[in-house]
This record gives sequence, C-alpha cells and structure tokens, in this order.
Amino acid sequence: MVQSRSRVVIIGAGFAGLEAAKHLGGHGLDVVVIDRRNHHLFQPLLYQVATAGLSPGEIAMPVRAILRDRPDTTVLMADIKGIDTAKRRVLLDHEETVSYDYLILATGATHSYFDHPEWEPLAPGLKSLEDATEIRRRILLAFERAERSKDEAERQALLTFVLIGGGPTGIELAGAIAELARYSLVRDFNHINPRLAKIRLIEAGPRLLGSFAPSAANMAMKSLTRLGVQVTLNKRVTDITAFGVTMSDGEFLAAHTVIWAAGVKPSPLAKDLSAALDRSGRVIVAPDLSVPGHPEIFVCGDLAAVVWRGEQMVPEMAPGAIQEGRGAARNLLRRIKGKPTVPFRYQHKGSMATIGRASAVVELGRLSFDGFSAWTVWLVVHIFYLIGFQNRLLVITQWAWSYFTFQRGARLITGRSDHPEAK
Amino acid sequence: MVQSRSRVVIIGAGFAGLEAAKHLGGHGLDVVVIDRRNHHLFQPLLYQVATAGLSPGEIAMPVRAILRDRPDTTVLMADIKGIDTAKRRVLLDHEETVSYDYLILATGATHSYFDHPEWEPLAPGLKSLEDATEIRRRILLAFERAERSKDEAERQALLTFVLIGGGPTGIELAGAIAELARYSLVRDFNHINPRLAKIRLIEAGPRLLGSFAPSAANMAMKSLTRLGVQVTLNKRVTDITAFGVTMSDGEFLAAHTVIWAAGVKPSPLAKDLSAALDRSGRVIVAPDLSVPGHPEIFVCGDLAAVVWRGEQMVPEMAPGAIQEGRGAARNLLRRIKGKPTVPFRYQHKGSMATIGRASAVVELGRLSFDGFSAWTVWLVVHIFYLIGFQNRLLVITQWAWSYFTFQRGARLITGRSDHPEAK
Repeated sequence: MVQSRSRVVIIGAGFAGLEAAKHLGGHGLDVVVIDRRNHHLFQPLLYQVATAGLSPGEIAMPVRAILRDRPDTTVLMADIKGIDTAKRRVLLDHEETVSYDYLILATGATHSYFDHPEWEPLAPGLKSLEDATEIRRRILLAFERAERSKDEAERQALLTFVLIGGGPTGIELAGAIAELARYSLVRDFNHINPRLAKIRLIEAGPRLLGSFAPSAANMAMKSLTRLGVQVTLNKRVTDITAFGVTMSDGEFLAAHTVIWAAGVKPSPLAKDLSAALDRSGRVIVAPDLSVPGHPEIFVCGDLAAVVWRGEQMVPEMAPGAIQEGRGAARNLLRRIKGKPTVPFRYQHKGSMATIGRASAVVELGRLSFDGFSAWTVWLVVHIFYLIGFQNRLLVITQWAWSYFTFQRGARLITGRSDHPEAK
Repeated sequence: MVQSRSRVVIIGAGFAGLEAAKHLGGHGLDVVVIDRRNHHLFQPLLYQVATAGLSPGEIAMPVRAILRDRPDTTVLMADIKGIDTAKRRVLLDHEETVSYDYLILATGATHSYFDHPEWEPLAPGLKSLEDATEIRRRILLAFERAERSKDEAERQALLTFVLIGGGPTGIELAGAIAELARYSLVRDFNHINPRLAKIRLIEAGPRLLGSFAPSAANMAMKSLTRLGVQVTLNKRVTDITAFGVTMSDGEFLAAHTVIWAAGVKPSPLAKDLSAALDRSGRVIVAPDLSVPGHPEIFVCGDLAAVVWRGEQMVPEMAPGAIQEGRGAARNLLRRIKGKPTVPFRYQHKGSMATIGRASAVVELGRLSFDGFSAWTVWLVVHIFYLIGFQNRLLVITQWAWSYFTFQRGARLITGRSDHPEAK
C-alpha cells in the first residue's frame, strides 16, 4: 500500500511562515511555501533602506536560497487569490490551485489608512522594498528641490518631514531622517542648510511607543528631542494633501514629505477562513494557534490575534512571529502524529528601537536602558538574526563605514515617483 | 574693479563630466554640474546589477558626495530642456535657466532601436540603474514562471534568453546569465533544471567585439561557448514580439526575455549646438574638443565624435570619456588664460570584457590574453577605478562571496514590470 505524503501549504515567507517551514522540513511531509515575492525581507531594518543607510539587497534574501537544502520543500512565487477551506485548496493567479492537507496562513499585515485610502499616495507606509525606495526617493528629492527652490515658503515645506505614528517605525524613521539631515547631507548643498530641516513626529496617543514600558517611551522622547525631532502627542491627523497635514486641533503643517507609520491592517485572506476576527481584522485563533472549527488550519504572525498575559496581545514584531511560526509547526506535527496539541506560550524577550546613529531604547524584562549600550545590544541582536552570512558581512561593513564617517552609502534617487506634485 | 568669476556649466555627471569637474575646481571659477540623476553610475559594472551579482548602491555614488569638498562647485539635479548658444544659457525644467561663460556638454548616449521604438518595452537596454533592475526582474521572474508552467513550449520560451548585440555589454550579460543559470540557481528549483536554460547571443556583424582585436574576439567566442552560450553571427534581428525574436534569415526564436545591447545613439542635446554631427548623431568636435564656431563650448564623452589614428574613433568606453573630460577641462583653462588650446590625444590603454565567473578577455597593446589572469586584471582595474572607498569594500566583499560560494547576493524581484505579457 502506498501512503501518499501529507501536503502542508504555508502562505507567506515572512518571519512566521519561514520559521514554520524550517520546522516542518525533514518530517516526511510535502511542504509548499507560497509568497508573492521571491524574497524574505528583514523588516526590522527596512527603515534603514528608506533612509539610505542600507541597500535593498542587504536586508532581503531569496526564499529559494534560504530553503534550498530541503528536498521536501517547494517554493512557489504566486499571488494568492483565495482559500477554499471546504475543498482544502488555495487559489493562485493564472487560475491555478494547490490542494492541501494542512494550511499555515502567515500573510501578515499591510498599511491601514483607516477610512482614507486617498492618503496612501500622499503618505506612503513602510512595508516592502518598493515602499522603502519610494520613501528614500521622496526624502532625497525634497532636499534636491529645496536646493533649487527660490521661494522661501516652498523651501520650508520641502525641508519639513512629517512622520505619522509614534510606534517603533515612526521613531526609527524620525531618528534616521534627523541624522541624514544633520550629519550625512550637511556639507552637500550650497543654497540650503540641511541642518535646518524640520522633522515632526505626530502621535495620536498620549505617549510614544505604546507597546513599550513608559520609561522606554520617556527615553525615546529625550533622544528624539536631542536629535532635533519635534514630537507632538495627543493629536490625530485629520487631513493630508500634497501641501501638508492638518491635525485634529486645526493646525496645518506645510510639508512636502509625509510618511505613514500609524496603522496596519491584517491581510484580506483572513476573511476566507470564515473564522471569527478581532476588531482590527486579525484571526482569533485557538490556544494551539489553529482556527476554531478547522483543526487543519493554523494562523501565525501579524495575521493572528494571540492572547498573552490576559488581555494583552502578542506584540506584532519579529520575535512573536518567529515563536508563533514554530508553535504552529509543532502543533501541526503533533496533530499529524495523532497527539494532542499544546497551547502556544509567548516568551517575551524584550522590545527595542533605535534612535539615530548610536542610540537606542531597549526594554528587557523590567529593565529599560538607552544610549550607546542599548544601541550595541540592538546592533548585535539584529545582525545576529539577519539571515544569510553574506548579508551580515555587508551590513557590518556598511555600518562600520557609516559609523566612522557619518556617511550613508545608498543615497540613490531611482524609479519614477507616484508623488502627486503640488504643481 | 570687481571682476566676476567665469561660470562653467558641465552637463552630465558621467565619466567625462565628472573628470572635467574635478580638473576645473580650484581655479577661481564658478563650476556648475547639472545631471538629471543624483548619482554617478559606474557603468562598466551595470551588467552585474542586471544579473544579481551587485546591488545598485554598490556601483552608484551621489554626485554631491563626490564633489562635496569643492566650495567653488555647485551640483544641480535637473532635466535639461535645451541649450541657447546665442544667449549662452541652459534651459532647465520648471522654466529655470542657468547662464554660462563656458559649457562642457557630456550627456552621453542612450539606447538606439534604429527605426523600431516599439521594441523598447520588449527588449530593454542597459544604461541606467532602473534598466538594470528591470532586466534583473525579467530574468529572475522567467525562472519563477518556468517553475510554475505546465506547458512545455511555454517553459522552453521562458528559459530562453536572447541578447541582441555582440559588443562588451552583450557578451558580459550573456556570460553572467549563463553562470546564474548554471551555478547560482541550479539547486533552487524543483520542477525545472536551470542548467537547461538557453542563452542566445545574436550579432549582426561577422564577429564578436568589433572594437577589439580579432584574437580577443576569438577568445571571447571560445569562453562563451564553454559556458554554453550559443552565438549567432551575421544575422540581424528583423522583428521582436512578446513571443520572441525573428532573424534576418527568417528563423524565429521563441523567447520570453530579450535584452537589447545592439546600439546607442547620442543624447538629443547635440542638436541644440547647431554643430555638424556625424552619421550616428555625435558632435564632430575640433581637435581641441571644442565645437567649431563656438570656442566656449566643449563636448566630450560618448556625445563627441573624436578621431583617433586616422579613420578610427575613440572607443565609447570609460577610459576615453575620462581622458576627453580631462582634455576638455585643460583646454578650457588654457582658453580662459588666453593661451592657445592643444589638440586632444587619446591614449589607448587597452580593452577588456569579462565572460562569467573568473574569465575575461584583455587586450593590452598588441597583447591579447584570456582566462583567469585576464579576469584578475579586469577585477583589479575595475575595483581600482570604482569611485568611493566604501563601494570598493562592498564590491570586494560581494565578489569574494560570489567567487567562493557561486552565490549571487542581489537576487531580488522588485518593482512593477513593463513587460507586455504574452497572455
């Protein structure tokens, strides 16, 4: 009797999906990893690409190369059109389908502009390499245009950079733009002083880094202020145009470059599972990360609403996604073997965010610290987790160079802009 | 009496323009360098970006950063709309003008599809970073699609890569694609064998590398054949569609990826000089590189038709452009000082082209050689000339990695394609 191998389809090659794939290899399964990109992206360093510190190739790695030595694993680059849970199959582009015995859904999240989709071209978010090179393009082009501008008000608007959202992405971008202006570009122009660029960070809540401890948020606030970033709390953005941003108290900020770091929404595939979703659209999973009513489907990463410590949710960052990917894979293997699954337990190892050149805030258990020591911890952890030996080598080279020379190597303006020009 | 400084405007920050700018600094002039890009591109390595060996940031450097320490030099990023030689001014976008006392025109060349502009989206050429990432995208995507294809004829077409033009660019691309298929990608796929990819190089003339010695051309032919590239000589391409290429003898090659390396034409700004142009549209300059009738205008680089050894022209490669840029700057300085200008003399130091991983052909004087020693010479010369210490460091790191592991680090599919899909 020939027993055909069970097929596990993993959708999404981010931190969660890739970790699941690594754990499922070598167990006599037929593993299929599907992503619409050919590369895994090291998202925690994406802000460095957006601010010209690193090149796209340094933080991305082909999925095929990562999973190359696994004969039981197939990688497909395809767009997912839907999931048919009744027939247990995934619908791809070009009218193809892939059937599954087990499914791991890890498609993550995308930008959410709440009810303002028209803001997207005006204030790009930071999720993909294309987003990062577009933001880099806008930032560098703003300085170029300011250099040529003969109108004082226009020059001011060109040299004003607004970051919407005071989470880790907003903070890291604000710090990096401030450094770019104050150090890297400072001797490059004849007519403008890049040091005079205004960097404004707007957060709707009462403090920065809502998911971190208040002490870490205070440290971040101090570091940003030291770099010249002007932080505004308790104000929402009510309108964005090609000319600038209006805030909830009516204040208008004339700005040419606006970046969205305020909200994400889960991938729309969640709806195909006909499972209960939480308020923000994430799949409410069972304690073992499977979908209630569908023991053959697991959800992990930013798409899953996973409870941690009572009412709190697992933070939407790489460590949580990696642990969930591993947890889902382990429970899937237990299920195949007929063993009972075990509840997923998130181990919180800490949170961290960099603020500029050699400063960071790190929260480890009850301990928060900042400054150079925090930055060192941040650097070691990030380089350690960066997939691929070559990438690490290149990133260390880039960083050493930037650190000692204040230069940023990837200051390229490429591609065509989608920016709706004011004139 | 206040004597205002003479203004020299240099258009184009390629090899010629940049070299001129370096020689004109520090002479009490007001030097303005205008380019529509913010970066200088190290064109000889562009084929490496197109074939995923290097990242864009590793072969490009911001013009401002290169010219930063020159207080008398201004860099402008602007599109040039025209040149008004009567009023001695350059017309920029946004209706700006810049007046000049002296002008150096070094805007180079762009792709020429002869009388077939409709071929451009079907067979991109390789001149800019965007061209390179688009070609990289097409090559990598062809393998991804072949992996998914269930139709044998379609798979064959997806795995056929046609290079049109047997000059250095066509040869270097053919060699690099052959390597990518035979070494870097070979273990990445489950359904296709990348080794079976067909790489076809089509040259209309009777031999490869028309501008090199015949012995070097023979060596290139042998090296390419060893890598599995099929070279077709004496056939022109008469039609290109989304399905493939038709040759002058009626043969049709079904191919999804077609790359144009057959011809360039000078920048259209040449026409604004109302100077005599040669058959291919280049400005016929006086022996001192100035424009006959306009002693205040110099032309250098690929835009200038410069005679060398009787009927032969200076080859359109970096060393010629650099020497012409220097020559134009020196004659401009002589003219300002009231000294007679001197005829430009091109020093031919040799020609070289790489063919794959560790092989090249090098022509030095009467000497031609190939293989590993040629590749070593090629590597040293290229890394030596690569502008910026950091770039060199990164490129050496990348190369060492690729050499010892056969891996190519920049295998990213990014951006939206302009490829007219067959279906």
